[in-house]
Order: sequence, then C-alpha cells, then structure tokens
Amino acid sequence: MDNLLLIAASESNANLYYASGFLAPDSFIYLSTGGESILLMSDLEVDRARLQSKVDHVLSYSDYEAKAKQHKDKVTAMDVVSALLKEKGVSELTVPASFPLECGDGLRALGYKLTIKREPFFEQRGIKTAEEVDAIRKTQIAVEEAVDDLFTLLHEASIQDGHIISNGVALSSEMLRQKLHLTLMEKGCLAEHSIIACGVDACDPHQIGHGLLRANAPIVFDIFPRSIETRYFADMSRTVVKGTASDGLKKLYDTVLEGQELGISRVRVGANGKAIHDEITALFESRGYKTGRVNGRMQGFFHGTGHGVGLDIHESPSISGRDCILQKGEVVTVEPGLYYPEIGAVRIEDMVLVLEDGCRNLTTYPKFLEIP
Amino acid sequence: MDNLLLIAASESNANLYYASGFLAPDSFIYLSTGGESILLMSDLEVDRARLQSKVDHVLSYSDYEAKAKQHKDKVTAMDVVSALLKEKGVSELTVPASFPLECGDGLRALGYKLTIKREPFFEQRGIKTAEEVDAIRKTQIAVEEAVDDLFTLLHEASIQDGHIISNGVALSSEMLRQKLHLTLMEKGCLAEHSIIACGVDACDPHQIGHGLLRANAPIVFDIFPRSIETRYFADMSRTVVKGTASDGLKKLYDTVLEGQELGISRVRVGANGKAIHDEITALFESRGYKTGRVNGRMQGFFHGTGHGVGLDIHESPSISGRDCILQKGEVVTVEPGLYYPEIGAVRIEDMVLVLEDGCRNLTTYPKFLEIP
Repeated sequence: MDNLLLIAASESNANLYYASGFLAPDSFIYLSTGGESILLMSDLEVDRARLQSKVDHVLSYSDYEAKAKQHKDKVTAMDVVSALLKEKGVSELTVPASFPLECGDGLRALGYKLTIKREPFFEQRGIKTAEEVDAIRKTQIAVEEAVDDLFTLLHEASIQDGHIISNGVALSSEMLRQKLHLTLMEKGCLAEHSIIACGVDACDPHQIGHGLLRANAPIVFDIFPRSIETRYFADMSRTVVKGTASDGLKKLYDTVLEGQELGISRVRVGANGKAIHDEITALFESRGYKTGRVNGRMQGFFHGTGHGVGLDIHESPSISGRDCILQKGEVVTVEPGLYYPEIGAVRIEDMVLVLEDGCRNLTTYPKFLEIP
Repeated sequence: MDNLLLIAASESNANLYYASGFLAPDSFIYLSTGGESILLMSDLEVDRARLQSKVDHVLSYSDYEAKAKQHKDKVTAMDVVSALLKEKGVSELTVPASFPLECGDGLRALGYKLTIKREPFFEQRGIKTAEEVDAIRKTQIAVEEAVDDLFTLLHEASIQDGHIISNGVALSSEMLRQKLHLTLMEKGCLAEHSIIACGVDACDPHQIGHGLLRANAPIVFDIFPRSIETRYFADMSRTVVKGTASDGLKKLYDTVLEGQELGISRVRVGANGKAIHDEITALFESRGYKTGRVNGRMQGFFHGTGHGVGLDIHESPSISGRDCILQKGEVVTVEPGLYYPEIGAVRIEDMVLVLEDGCRNLTTYPKFLEIP
C-alpha cells in the first residue's frame, strides 16, 4: 500500500478534508501508512483535531520538532515531517499533483522518493456513498427552493420599458443574487459566485452578471452552493426569459435541451465522458450551431459538458474533450450551453448519479424558457 | 527583474487574484516578465479575463497548445506554458512555495530553472494602499455592526436555569452564528467559520462552538468575514459573559486585555513581531498564567499574537515566535488569549495599521466582559 502524504489547509483542500474529517484554515500534515492515518498538528489545533478528526492518530508537531532538534540546530518543517517518517519507516511517498513544490524539494533533499498521483488522489472520493448522495441531494433541494423563490418573483414582476419591475423597483443581477444568497444561507448553504447573467453578460459562461435585468432576454442562473454542515455542493443551471423569447432563442433553447437530454441518456457505468461530449458537440454542429472565435470572441459550445460534484464544486470525473470512463456512484453535471451574442445564451444543467444501466437525476426542478 | 510564474485558481489563491485582478474557480496561468503581465486562459475564460483582469495581455491557452503541438504529438500543460516561455525568452522562473509539484517537475524536465520564493511572494501585497485600508475598514464596520446586534440580543435576553433566553428560546452557538452570517451577508460580507464558543468549547481557540450558550460563562466571538465586493477580510475577537463573570475569569480577562494593550503599544515600523509576542508571553507568565500541556491538553497562551489581514485572512506578517520586522502600511491583528478549562477562555483581538511611530487601530468596537 502506498504511503500518502498531504500538506495543505483542509478548508481549501477537499482531499485533505475527505481524508481527515478535520477542517482548519492553515496548513497541516496528513500521513497514511501501513493502514494507519496520522495528523501532525500545531499546538493551536492538536486538541481540536483529537476531538474532531476521524484519523487514527493525532500527533503533536511540537513533539516531532523537538525530536528533529536532537539532530539539528535549525530545523525546517520538512525536518519535522522527516522525524515522523523515519519513526514510521517510510522512505517513499505518494503526493498529489498540487503538493507544494517547496515541501517536495525539501523532502527529496532529505532523500525521500516522491511519486505524484493525479486526481482522483483518493479514488473512493469520486464514488459517492448513499450518505454522500443524500448530502448532495439536500444541498440541491435548497438550490431548487431558492431558485423557485426567484422565478416566482420574476413571475409576479411586471415589465416596463424593457426592465423587470418588482414592488416598483427594476430588478438587477445584484439584487436577485443577494436575495438568493440570503435564502440559501437561511437553508444552511453558502454561495458566493452564483451566476445570474442577462443577455450579452451571459455569453461569458462564468460572468456572474451585473446591472439591470432585461425582459424578453435570456437570463442564465447557475447556482452551486455548499452545505455549511456537510460541505457537499450541488450545482444547477436554468435559463429563463421574463416575457417572450425570440424565435432564435427558442430554437437555441430547444437545441441545448435536446443536447442535455441526449447527454443524460448516455450517462452510465463505462460510458466515456469524451464520447458524450463529442456527441453533444456533433448534435449542435448538425443543427448549424458552430463553435469557434468570431470577431475575436468565443461563440458556440466552448466549455465541457460536465464535471463531478462533491466536496469540490469541480472534481473528477469530467465529461469533456478528455477520455474519462464513468464509474458507478459518481455524481456528475450535464450542462451543455450555447452562446451567441447575436441570439443569446442558454445553459441547462442537472446533476445525475451514475448507475449501472443509466443514471438517476438528482435534479427535480422543471425546465422552461419563458416566465410569463 | 525576476520572471514570476503562478499556476493556481485565483478564488483560493490570493497572490494570483492580487496580481491578475481576475477571479476564477479553476487553475490558470500568470506570467510576469520584462515588466509585462500575461494570463494564459482557457477558451471558457479568455474573453471574461480580457474584460475583467488587470494584466497587460490575456492570451489564449488553445493558441499556445496549437503552437506546442507543432513540435510534439501529445502535449502536457507544461509544454503549453513552455511555448509561451520560449516566445518570451524566459528560462529562469521564480515561483511560490505552494507552486504545484507536478508543474515544477514538468518545467524542470523541460530545462527551466525554478527558484522558490516564500511569502510574501509579492512584497507589495503586505503594504496596504489607502484604498486597501479603506476596504478592510469597511469590512470591519460590518463586523462591528453585526457583533453589536448580537450583544444587544444578549443584553435583552434573560437568564433561566443557566441558559440565555430570547423570545422564549434558549440561545445556542448555532443560532447566533446563523443570525450573524445573515446580518453580515446583508452588509455584503461572507463569513463561514465564525467562532461563537462558550465555556470549555472556547478553550480550543479554533473550535467554532456548538450547543446551548450558558450564562455567567465566557463566550468567545471571533468574526472574520470577507467583503464580497472587495474580497478584503477583517478580523475581530471579543469575549463576553452574559450575566456575571467569576473573579478568576475577571482576572483572566484583565490580564489578556493588559497583554493586548501592551502588544498594540509596541506595534510600529521596525518592531520585531517575535519581541512583541515574547513580551506578552512574559507578562502572562509573570501573572502566573503558565502555558503548556496539562493532562495532555494545551493550556495558557498557545497561539501567535497576530497575523496580517488582507486578501487572505491569515497572511504576512506574523507576530509570533518567528522573527518578523513590521513594515509601514501592514495591517495586523493583535489577539492574545488565555485558555484554562478550569477558569475559562479569553481572547481579545483588534486589527491595527502599522505606522512610523505606532499604529492606528482599525477596530473601534469597545471592550467589556460582562453583558448585564
């Protein structure tokens, strides 16, 4: 069995949180060797780690620093790690691609052999347990309720001079985002960069959207909060028009929906993400929707079809231009989009659970373009 | 001038956000060479980066991938980076300590010489401009208003059977945290792990706190949200008792406050953070408050005195056991604490701006122990 070493802050490193069950803002050290999992923690965190982490042993960094100082006057953090590694008889280590270069150089200089393992660093992390699927689904329920609140607001709003008016005020991306984030927080979910982008704004898929919303124009909603309790994300996109969509936009919407349904129908154990992505791309091409640069700007379908969702919002596997065989228990998004500044932007995204003979859609929110 | 290279996701890497002004959830490439700053961006992000980033040039990853493929059939991400580096005549690079090991190995295998530069990677990031100080102060105003709401709630609450009752309900850490986070979000700030910890919970400095709050026991509030608009953090801690503090706790509080005031009085350009930290530690020792392990658990003053605050909640400089000379324009916390399960926990934290002859306290919220 490999000796696994992680050095990171678990608040921003999902692998470390997954392995340790311990959340901390500053870097700490995780070692898995001989079937044992070990944390090496600062004085500040050692007692909390003993209470909250799920590893076999929580050791004190200060203790190992003292051991390292028996051999050297001035010790580095890697000398301290080395004191632990020597005690455990470890000389070869497997580390993630994102392992800090300074730590890698330090360990190699001390004679350790490092092997880099790409994502998924923990294969098991991709394969969701029933409990993990439940956590993702709970986050998703909050997303659907919060989005429904917004769509109800749009439905009840009126249109004046091309703007969308609610309680006498013209609605903006910022206002809806603030309302969405407050609703999500009331439901125990944390969202930061939720996309509520209208018209040309929405033609940049990661543009979060700014300014007044316009009636009769597409508004892309892409909502992906994390549960504060479980730390599992959910991810859903919908595209709507308050008022009436143009014929060109309706056709664009129907085509993206057809592509999305095609993608969902192809998700199953053993399917290649690349084949799914290529098939959707080909469908769009066959309908006349070309992808590429026009006047220096990307148009068409220029992002991946989907990604894994879990403790990270973007994690393995991928449904994109890269080969990637889907496995049972993975949770992936299927979210094709088409973007043309002249016509509009459409993205439709569900989250599905990969099963032996197909998939289970974890998203139950309906799909519609126009909100009257 | 050094050639600087960063490869990271700017949502979780403040150096990259600082250098690029561009926020993205997935890794991208930043190069600074010959006085020019360059981003190499995926098709998904290239147009948004051209609109939103503050670098001199935003280049297309796909274009450089095509260039790299002129020489090799199967290219890695580092081959693509190398195509850019060759064009710029760069062969030596300065990278941060956290630079991904896989990228480091890849570049070295292609013949590049990498030099690791520790934090502060960008010295200028520590030295806050007037605009940055203003952003931090704005976040701090939200903190103070939100904390004041909570303390007003505690003041208006009653005590029954040792619990703190508001509107007929016993208050818990979770309830206050939820209220705090909603208030902060209404003020445009995002908080996640705010500490509202009572009694023994609070003796673990990073324990966020759980369960019912108790009257006549210390409650540590440590609040450090980020502004959603500016991305600058603020950080403040207060310790209060609803009801009456024991004599032992009062003495503990007065000692921590004395240590904190001592620390603040020592902050100025050229002061060594280690000297400040050591002086506070010595004061606590002289008052009989020892630090160390008792029955296997850390007690006393076992964390640093302070840290820089900016685009990261913990950044350079530090006021701790390590030598670190303070510079003009740095914003640092001064937050000593004492933790004894038998007596209680106290931490008091202000954020100050380092000046030539002292410091300016960016925290204006009063300090008091008892809330009647």
